[in-house]
Amino acid sequence: MFENKDNSRQNIEQLGEFGLINHLTKNFKIKQTTTVKGVGDDAAVLGSNPDEELVVTTDMLLENIHFDLAYMPLKHLGYKAVIANLSDVYAMNAEARQITVSIAVSNRFPVEALEELYAGIQTACDIYSVDLIGGDTTSSTTGLIISITAIGAVKKGEAVYRNGAKENDLLVVTGDLGGAYLGLQVLEREKQVFLVNPQSQPDLEPYSYLVERQLKPEARKDIPILLRELGVRPTAMIDISDGLSSEIFHICTQSNVGCRLYEEKIPIVPQVISTCEEFELDSTTIALNGGEDYELLFTIGMDDYPKIKGNPHLTVIGHITKDLAKNLITRASTEIALKARGWTAFEDQ
Amino acid sequence: MFENKDNSRQNIEQLGEFGLINHLTKNFKIKQTTTVKGVGDDAAVLGSNPDEELVVTTDMLLENIHFDLAYMPLKHLGYKAVIANLSDVYAMNAEARQITVSIAVSNRFPVEALEELYAGIQTACDIYSVDLIGGDTTSSTTGLIISITAIGAVKKGEAVYRNGAKENDLLVVTGDLGGAYLGLQVLEREKQVFLVNPQSQPDLEPYSYLVERQLKPEARKDIPILLRELGVRPTAMIDISDGLSSEIFHICTQSNVGCRLYEEKIPIVPQVISTCEEFELDSTTIALNGGEDYELLFTIGMDDYPKIKGNPHLTVIGHITKDLAKNLITRASTEIALKARGWTAFEDQ
Repeated sequence: MFENKDNSRQNIEQLGEFGLINHLTKNFKIKQTTTVKGVGDDAAVLGSNPDEELVVTTDMLLENIHFDLAYMPLKHLGYKAVIANLSDVYAMNAEARQITVSIAVSNRFPVEALEELYAGIQTACDIYSVDLIGGDTTSSTTGLIISITAIGAVKKGEAVYRNGAKENDLLVVTGDLGGAYLGLQVLEREKQVFLVNPQSQPDLEPYSYLVERQLKPEARKDIPILLRELGVRPTAMIDISDGLSSEIFHICTQSNVGCRLYEEKIPIVPQVISTCEEFELDSTTIALNGGEDYELLFTIGMDDYPKIKGNPHLTVIGHITKDLAKNLITRASTEIALKARGWTAFEDQ
Repeated sequence: MFENKDNSRQNIEQLGEFGLINHLTKNFKIKQTTTVKGVGDDAAVLGSNPDEELVVTTDMLLENIHFDLAYMPLKHLGYKAVIANLSDVYAMNAEARQITVSIAVSNRFPVEALEELYAGIQTACDIYSVDLIGGDTTSSTTGLIISITAIGAVKKGEAVYRNGAKENDLLVVTGDLGGAYLGLQVLEREKQVFLVNPQSQPDLEPYSYLVERQLKPEARKDIPILLRELGVRPTAMIDISDGLSSEIFHICTQSNVGCRLYEEKIPIVPQVISTCEEFELDSTTIALNGGEDYELLFTIGMDDYPKIKGNPHLTVIGHITKDLAKNLITRASTEIALKARGWTAFEDQ
């Protein structure tokens, strides 16, 4: 799809490794005062504030495992790859500041395609006020590989871990769930239709929210700020990109507690419900296990409930129990054990 | 080669992504006081010292581009992957402290093979006092991919960049050059012999130093310490893993200067010279362009020369000129233009 058959296009080999990095990163501006030195040396140099701790997280994305270039435009891919990492920084209650981006790509990829990818990375950097400070470009014999490391900062002692949930704490989730997974189902269906009939024009309008959740997700930069404004310090927090159910398991296991989750409380928008009906899927299962919703899950003490009550970004979906069982209370009031299915990169390969 | 055909072996799929990370990292010990939280949350948390700056560097290694599992044992590969990143930290005049390691691997890889890889990573972490603080494991449809980010620290204002070289500064290199490249040639030759005759036993003894430089290189952790002890502050410094010649170009270009490099001064050990003769290669060309010698190249003011004179780790190989030409003075006293050939991952693919 991206083979460079047009000789008028620029060739990666002509630029070379260093020329390529320079070419792709030359329009990135440094925005963070802690970025002392960005791209262009053996390593980037970052200043530090004495009252802060740093957070560091990393993710690797592979073509045909994590994304499919058949329906993922490269600009969106670059944007989403950054978002996936920033989400982990926000899940620590921290502010994101810098990223490094390494890519491996066939040298038959035209430079224009990489420019698209970096345009998406740059858009995310601009919107989230994050600096690109380094990276590596190398040749791949197969598909495109993107590895990003994100660095953030949090006031000393204010990082929120997965292991602090306590009995009676409330389980709170941001935003709504299931959209990204359904967006993927819609795009997969259109891809199959296209393969059979390349003339068909997809009508994605009825699924616009879902497709956007899949192709151009946002990370919850606003949540650590909101929590500070509300005077709420979560006892535990996690990014739920691998699916609500599996992330609840992580919090419960690491905190040595259990939970009761209420099906009727799980935030699901009407477009998710109607599309689930169309695809004959159970919306609760999708919300629990779909994944790729870059929302945050956290626990707060009962005393903090009045501070978050009625906030449109936050939904209380259950509470933490001393008993280690992790149960879902269904709409029919039956209690069933949650399964930590989530999403794993080693499944079904 | 590493396909899991033996059912008694542990399977990556059985462990799952989180089980696999836990399994591979459970024996790693935290050594650095700045590591507040390592593996196991959305992100690692690092403390900072008010009088320090951090350095961050990242590298991605791909099977059959950067390494060949036919002659690269996985334990050595893990070790070398860490070394390659630490070398960039030391090239900033910094101390290495933490790394993240992301790997992508086919789920047909036996867990035992990954254990070998992580044993090498752990050995490097132990020897260099570096903490593994995070990472990602994911499935690859093709070969093994390793992406490492290294984090270090340097006293505020003491980071050494590539762009500070000045007229009359001396060009200094650590260790000796060309060994790693020749080690690769020896291993490649043995691989070809093995393909023709699988019964042949390679005799690598005469090439032991070269093979070690290729398979188990060390990073110059000692150099920033030595320079501090000697009271020498380099004006510019760079890691020369891509080849002396190309790294001299980086320093000269970024410092807006030229240089005169003396062929007879380039440190080359006898085993490199004799093996070059055997392979009918020019040892100066190999030393200039071979690459993968994890040595450091730096420039110092003339006033500092007495401090480094006679030090067995350091060799003055030339000096910086105001004129932008980058010239090699041959043994025959002719002056020829240096070429920045170096090593690029996009060449010859």
